[in-house]
Amino acid sequence: MLFAVKMDVRIPNDLDPDVRADTIAREKAYSQELQRKGIWPHIWRCVGQYSNLSVFDVRDNDELHDILWGLPLFPYMEIEVTPLALHPSDIATTGEAA
Amino acid sequence: MLFAVKMDVRIPNDLDPDVRADTIAREKAYSQELQRKGIWPHIWRCVGQYSNLSVFDVRDNDELHDILWGLPLFPYMEIEVTPLALHPSDIATTGEAA
Amino acid sequence: MLFAVKMDVRIPNDLDPDVRADTIAREKAYSQELQRKGIWPHIWRCVGQYSNLSVFDVRDNDELHDILWGLPLFPYMEIEVTPLALHPSDIATTGEAA
Amino acid sequence: MLFAVKMDVRIPNDLDPDVRADTIAREKAYSQELQRKGIWPHIWRCVGQYSNLSVFDVRDNDELHDILWGLPLFPYMEIEVTPLALHPSDIATTGEAA
Amino acid sequence: MLFAVKMDVRIPNDLDPDVRADTIAREKAYSQELQRKGIWPHIWRCVGQYSNLSVFDVRDNDELHDILWGLPLFPYMEIEVTPLALHPSDIATTGEAA
Amino acid sequence: MLFAVKMDVRIPNDLDPDVRADTIAREKAYSQELQRKGIWPHIWRCVGQYSNLSVFDVRDNDELHDILWGLPLFPYMEIEVTPLALHPSDIATTGEAA
Amino acid sequence: MLFAVKMDVRIPNDLDPDVRADTIAREKAYSQELQRKGIWPHIWRCVGQYSNLSVFDVRDNDELHDILWGLPLFPYMEIEVTPLALHPSDIATTGEAA
Amino acid sequence: MLFAVKMDVRIPNDLDPDVRADTIAREKAYSQELQRKGIWPHIWRCVGQYSNLSVFDVRDNDELHDILWGLPLFPYMEIEVTPLALHPSDIATTGEAA
Amino acid sequence: MLFAVKMDVRIPNDLDPDVRADTIAREKAYSQELQRKGIWPHIWRCVGQYSNLSVFDVRDNDELHDILWGLPLFPYMEIEVTPLALHPSDIATTGEAA
Amino acid sequence: MLFAVKMDVRIPNDLDPDVRADTIAREKAYSQELQRKGIWPHIWRCVGQYSNLSVFDVRDNDELHDILWGLPLFPYMEIEVTPLALHPSDIATTGEAA
Repeated sequence: MLFAVKMDVRIPNDLDPDVRADTIAREKAYSQELQRKGIWPHIWRCVGQYSNLSVFDVRDNDELHDILWGLPLFPYMEIEVTPLALHPSDIATTGEAA
Repeated sequence: MLFAVKMDVRIPNDLDPDVRADTIAREKAYSQELQRKGIWPHIWRCVGQYSNLSVFDVRDNDELHDILWGLPLFPYMEIEVTPLALHPSDIATTGEAA
Repeated sequence: MLFAVKMDVRIPNDLDPDVRADTIAREKAYSQELQRKGIWPHIWRCVGQYSNLSVFDVRDNDELHDILWGLPLFPYMEIEVTPLALHPSDIATTGEAA
Repeated sequence: MLFAVKMDVRIPNDLDPDVRADTIAREKAYSQELQRKGIWPHIWRCVGQYSNLSVFDVRDNDELHDILWGLPLFPYMEIEVTPLALHPSDIATTGEAA
Repeated sequence: MLFAVKMDVRIPNDLDPDVRADTIAREKAYSQELQRKGIWPHIWRCVGQYSNLSVFDVRDNDELHDILWGLPLFPYMEIEVTPLALHPSDIATTGEAA
Repeated sequence: MLFAVKMDVRIPNDLDPDVRADTIAREKAYSQELQRKGIWPHIWRCVGQYSNLSVFDVRDNDELHDILWGLPLFPYMEIEVTPLALHPSDIATTGEAA
Repeated sequence: MLFAVKMDVRIPNDLDPDVRADTIAREKAYSQELQRKGIWPHIWRCVGQYSNLSVFDVRDNDELHDILWGLPLFPYMEIEVTPLALHPSDIATTGEAA
Repeated sequence: MLFAVKMDVRIPNDLDPDVRADTIAREKAYSQELQRKGIWPHIWRCVGQYSNLSVFDVRDNDELHDILWGLPLFPYMEIEVTPLALHPSDIATTGEAA
Repeated sequence: MLFAVKMDVRIPNDLDPDVRADTIAREKAYSQELQRKGIWPHIWRCVGQYSNLSVFDVRDNDELHDILWGLPLFPYMEIEVTPLALHPSDIATTGEAA
Repeated sequence: MLFAVKMDVRIPNDLDPDVRADTIAREKAYSQELQRKGIWPHIWRCVGQYSNLSVFDVRDNDELHDILWGLPLFPYMEIEVTPLALHPSDIATTGEAA
């Protein structure tokens, strides 16, 4: 089940640089582990923003919430969640890809 | 070069039903041709909305504009375009996917 | 899996009264059938608005989208969807209800 | 009498961790006591947000205000209140549930 | 129990002048009957707007909704409802008026 | 001459508790003196908000500004002012109250 | 007593051209009569908009409302009213103009 | 050439009181000098706001920017600039004032 | 003197096709004449929008207003005007271009 | 490939003055180097704002993102990016400039 998630990062300017660097490193590891598992299939940087647009493939709402809540940068993020469904024009859906 | 495009469709209720059906059919064909060419790699329905979230892979801004301007439903759409860049945590980028 | 759905109804003032009455009657039947099945467990009127706040209990995003898309009043609605998860303070969750 | 209440929590990042933990614990106890009394019949987490959507069943506006004002997290919350009424399609209202 | 209600009137310019005049006359009668009963204790015109700010004194949310839904101008209104509670500085509340 | 005034209070969490308590006490006294004079005829708490909706009865704009500027909580408030006029449906205006 | 008033004009494209021309001519005459009386001391066009920013000098809120309500273009306007007071830096106020 | 300028002042609560008083004094002197020169012909206080609505009469955009940038309170202001043109109904323009 | 102007075009779907085509043709001729004169030095299409971002180089506010008001598509446009000044980092300004 | 970029600068008032001055100096040098290379062909100050409107000419989205992310003032900026395409009325496009 797919969800689009927009994450805007707002790290306070006075955050301790070591805490900052450590949090960003843990965020990257956390994201990449979920990418490798196929749970976080897409992550794109929004140009000119400290933001990303991601797609998650999860079992249900609770799994998605636990993942987002557990993001090391979660306390510094504004997050917007859009549930996605199959689109009737999607060639994967209609079997017209071939 | 990737762009996220959110399209909200607002077909007027008084549009002639035949025109409406024909426009939607042409929109589907138009979309699927671009999907098959790899130019429109993702199209998702936003749940509960007459909207889609799509990703386009184009040469440049002009190509993207020409594609969107040519959408049969373009006169009835609100469109929001977000240019995307590679994300430093993307395992495809960092070669950490394996 | 639960979703909160806010529906704002905007029926055009010039809609044919018979079409209007028929659409509203079909909407009511459609809603009540889903209520009886437990798929639409809550529907409340927002005071002073032609709007409702509802909760849906569905298998996945696609089922929710199909239900909303099929609403007889869908062409006249603005819909906002919020995916819901279990709340850690919910007594049903923590077994502290007794 | 029912009200939907959306609560967005914005705890400052520099709040003393002990004060933070204590406040959250008191919030949970406060909520659960009202849940057990039937005054706070629903509480859901909004996915990806430090927010909840709740339903309150109170005698009047003053009781609701006193409850919300007394929330341990009240100083850190943005709260939106929507008064709810019976919906004419609600099967509980129309006696069509059986 | 008090509620502040802001009503913005948007009568379509092409409404039949007789229907328009009749609706406005019925709105006035409807309002004045509720004013005389003490249910609609305040109605003020917002300067420069086809809008009013009103205060209602009702038994509960359902009574308020039925009143607003029954307004002859309801189909042409945008309505905003704010539940009100006693203010701790109100001299009527604190017995300090004398 | 009447004005509706909405006041949203945003006291910083790190304000000295004694300053805070003293400011709130002075605010209450200031408000109640104006209430007794008939200049501040209505003050209501907005449910679930650290906000009030008030009505002022003043000689002119300058008097209203001086009153609001002098509020002890003014530095911590967001204020919205709506000038009010007699409403043509008001039974007090039309002499239909009796 | 001064008020700033922003008026945005939205004449429907399908208004009868004669009605349109007549309404605009009456609007101009109405405005100029009030300008000559000193009640409408300033009227400026906002560049690139079918809008004006005006200043009115009236006895009270009711007079201002009656003037605005009577504007021939009132049914096609969005109006925003800002009550103005003397500014403490105004050289006219402080007698420092000389 | 005229511009309407709305200035909202947001002085941080923790600004040193002497710096605050000095900045406000310099702002007043700065404003009054420009008023005396005819460059800042109008300044009004917006009722209930730490804001002013002003009109500037300058040679060009660069002169206006330099003036606003040089305001002692500039670092604490939100500023909105609206270029103004002659209004065709202005009696000064049409020679109908006499 | 430079101004950035954003123009969003909203031609009604039911406009007569001949009127539409003629208006667009006149708009193009009008724009190109001003481009050739150096008054409209930049015009860019905003990708995916029936919108343009333009820069105008005019004598004063009145000239800009007359130009925009005279646009054949003006009745169907939403226009936003931003006055521009020299930027202190502009190499043209600082003579550091060479 | 062109992009319009609006940058709003929000330097915290409590930033160390030396850090502030140094950051601004580095920002200017960074901008001017890109201007000289033709990558940042336009930079204008928005009148009355600590903001600029710029146009960038880059190879692709990734190059633009890297440039913006590298701005010394990036941590203090709100940035809005608008991809631009050729406009069909542009005389440069249509060869009608001569």
